Parts: sequence; structure tokens; C-alpha cells
Amino acid sequence: MLTFYHGPHTRSSRIVRLLIEMDILEQVDVRVVGLVRRGGEGAPDPANPHPEGKVPLLVHDGEMIRESNAIILYLTDLFDSPLGVPVGDPLRGPYLSWLAYYGNVMEPVLFCSFAGIDHPAMQATFRGLDEMYARLAEALTDRPYLLGDRFSAADLLLVSAFTFAPQLVPDIPAIRNWVDRCGDRPSTAKLEHFESRLTGNSAAE
Amino acid sequence: MLTFYHGPHTRSSRIVRLLIEMDILEQVDVRVVGLVRRGGEGAPDPANPHPEGKVPLLVHDGEMIRESNAIILYLTDLFDSPLGVPVGDPLRGPYLSWLAYYGNVMEPVLFCSFAGIDHPAMQATFRGLDEMYARLAEALTDRPYLLGDRFSAADLLLVSAFTFAPQLVPDIPAIRNWVDRCGDRPSTAKLEHFESRLTGNSAAE
Ligand SMILES: N[C@@H](CCC(=O)N[C@@H](CS)C(=O)NCC(=O)O)C(=O)O
Ligand SMILES: N[C@@H](CCC(=O)N[C@@H](CS)C(=O)NCC(=O)O)C(=O)O
Repeated sequence: MLTFYHGPHTRSSRIVRLLIEMDILEQVDVRVVGLVRRGGEGAPDPANPHPEGKVPLLVHDGEMIRESNAIILYLTDLFDSPLGVPVGDPLRGPYLSWLAYYGNVMEPVLFCSFAGIDHPAMQATFRGLDEMYARLAEALTDRPYLLGDRFSAADLLLVSAFTFAPQLVPDIPAIRNWVDRCGDRPSTAKLEHFESRLTGNSAAE
Repeated sequence: MLTFYHGPHTRSSRIVRLLIEMDILEQVDVRVVGLVRRGGEGAPDPANPHPEGKVPLLVHDGEMIRESNAIILYLTDLFDSPLGVPVGDPLRGPYLSWLAYYGNVMEPVLFCSFAGIDHPAMQATFRGLDEMYARLAEALTDRPYLLGDRFSAADLLLVSAFTFAPQLVPDIPAIRNWVDRCGDRPSTAKLEHFESRLTGNSAAE
């Protein structure tokens, strides 16, 4: 049994998009929960078992799986699909590296940029936006997607930062074109449709 | 062919400890490289293929694997050992969650605490030391290790923060005892021996 705790238009939306891309949305019980949103509105929802009231959270046969990159890897390892990269595949290392890089480096860098935190230790440890753009541009030059010719869950996760904050898309063609390419997929409209139904329902309740 | 780029007494030391715990150190070509250390001494080493001159970096058959948590997962999936948790095991989800939590939450929280960055957005996004201690204490109450009775690579990664900064071990018995339990393993002395030989060698060069 797979249960997914979701807040429409939050970091958990990218997991819904993954479920759509993997064609397994019907196999998952998606539960919409309340949460504290940007700006401080809302409250943690007692119906959400996440210890800090956050989303996304996946529960599989009673075990909780937290953190977007862990959930993505868990699902792409559990179900066969073109979104993941199995153990033993030569691209497994790059796949794991991008998922980890997103959480370890991109989120802190983007967070500091949003919060206006500019501290010398930041540059020494995580580096900044310029280095992040450089890493993406290197990877996407001569390649449509991070791992090559195929859209993977690594693209889905990393591009979500730019879907969420389009003003951060840099003026670098390799990155701009990749953001567009990912956005042009049918899952964009399907996710919007799913989310609008959810928020419609919850408003009607 | 596995090549590992290493800086003694840095974040890459925990990967050496993993290689020792998994008993595969002899199967890996460990190359010591220079790097910019805390305080700014040192320089990126042209012999290190990491795009930002960082360690750890693993290269397997020409593919780079970056980020400690990705490297740990890659190795424990590649080689059978009691340190990892295979796909399909009920503990796979918690295993992936702890590896991700370390990079996504613990490193940013510890970083801000070291750098003295105290910003309201920090608490809203990553939370703080107290919540981090609470998550660890919950997990380690009634259980010797994060996943249960067995020391895993999740313990190895998370405890490395406290080995590196013992002043951060909180006055919470469940956490203190876990730090001691992990420190008491033979790999602690073996790692020290390995590192002191390396730094001896490099000083003699
Ligand atoms: N590192 C986590 C972050 C999750 C997260 O912060 N989610 C936000 C929604 S965008 C949330 O649940 N916020 C509610 C809160 O912080 O109380 C991940 O990537 O899954
Ligand atoms: N998120 C990375 C961090 C790696 C890292 O920052 N390593 C430090 C050594 S402790 C480094 O190589 N510093 C050199 C530099 O930043 O130039 C990981 O966990 O592997």
C-alpha cells in the first residue's frame, strides 16, 4: 500500500508529476493535507504523519519515506519506468549524483538567494548561483537532458526549482531550452488538471 | 575500475571509513588530492576531476559520482554488505530517507549554526538544531542504530557530523550513546591508521 501526503502547488507537486510520468498515479492513495505555506499561512495538519508537518511524504506498507529526492529514487527503483536508472546501469552514478546535488547544493543555494543571505562561508561550502548554472550548462551542452537523450526523474526534480521560480532561469540557452523542453511535456497539463481538481474539491468541502 | 579522490581528515574520510567497513578498500584506487581547506588554505588540485575541486569524488568506469550520500548509496548498492539496504527490503525507504535528510537538512542546519547565520527563513525551511536533535532522538530511542539493531551506512554518514564537531553532540542520552557506539567500532582506529599513513606519505613527497 502506497499513501502519498500532498499539498497542491508545493514541493510535493513534483512527486505527483513523477507519478503521472511513471503512469502509476492510480496505484497511490494521494491525500491532500494542510501545511504552513510561504508567508506563514496555514498550519501543520494532524492528518499528516510527517514529524515536521511537511510534504512530500510517502508511506509504503507502514514505512515513511521523507525528502523529495529519496521519494523519487524509492519510486523509480520500485517500479520499472523510463524515468529511473536501475542499479548496474552505467548512468546510475550520474543519476544518484544529480538527485543528491539537488538537495545538498541547489536547495541551499536557492534558499540563500531567496532569503538574501550572502555570507562568505556560503560560497566556500555550497558555492553560489553562478556555479550552479555552470554545472547545469556543462551537463546540458550537447545533450537535451541531464543524463543524455532521455527525460529522467533527475530532470523532473532539478527543473522543478525553475518551474517554481521562473525568474531564476538564467540567460544561458542550454538551460533555457532544457527548462522549455521539460515544460512542454504532457505531464505539465496533466499535473495542472489534477491540482486544480484537488483544490476545487478541497474548497468545496 | 573504481577510483576515489580523497582528502585526509575531510568529508571524504567517511567514505574511506565505509570502504573499510565494507571490506573493499583494496578494490578501490584511493588518490589523495589537495583542496581548499577550512580557513582557506590549500588550492584545488588539477589531479582532481571534480568540477569544483571538492572531495569526495568516486569515478567508476569513467562515470563520476559526486556528493557523499550519493557515493554511499552507489557503493552499498554495488557491493553486498551489511552496511546497505537493498531495493525491496522494508528498510529501504528509511535508509534512503536518512541519507537524503543528512544532505538536505543536517548539513544546511549545521552549516548555519557554524557560520552564525540565524534567519527566520532558515527555521521555516530547514528548521534548526533542536528539530534535528528531536528527529535523531526519536529514531534512537529503543533502538541502538537508526535502522534498528544493525549499524548501517546511514549511521556512518549521520554520525560523521558529530565526529567532526564533537561540541555539537547534545546532552541527550540516546544520541550521546549512539555517537559512542559508532565511535567504538574497529573502523575508527583503522581509518586513523590509514589517514596517518597517507598524510605521512604526502608530507614525505
Ligand atoms: N527537503 C524537503 C522539503 C520539504 C518542504 O519543505 N516542503 C514544504 C512545502 S513546499 C512544507 O511542507 N512546508 C511546511 C512546513 O515547513 O511546515 C523535500 O525536498 O522534500
Ligand atoms: N556536499 C558535498 C560536500 C563536499 C565538500 O564540501 N568537501 C570539502 C571537504 S570537507 C571540499 O572538498 N572542499 C574544497 C572546496 O570547497 O574547494 C558532500 O557531502 O560530498
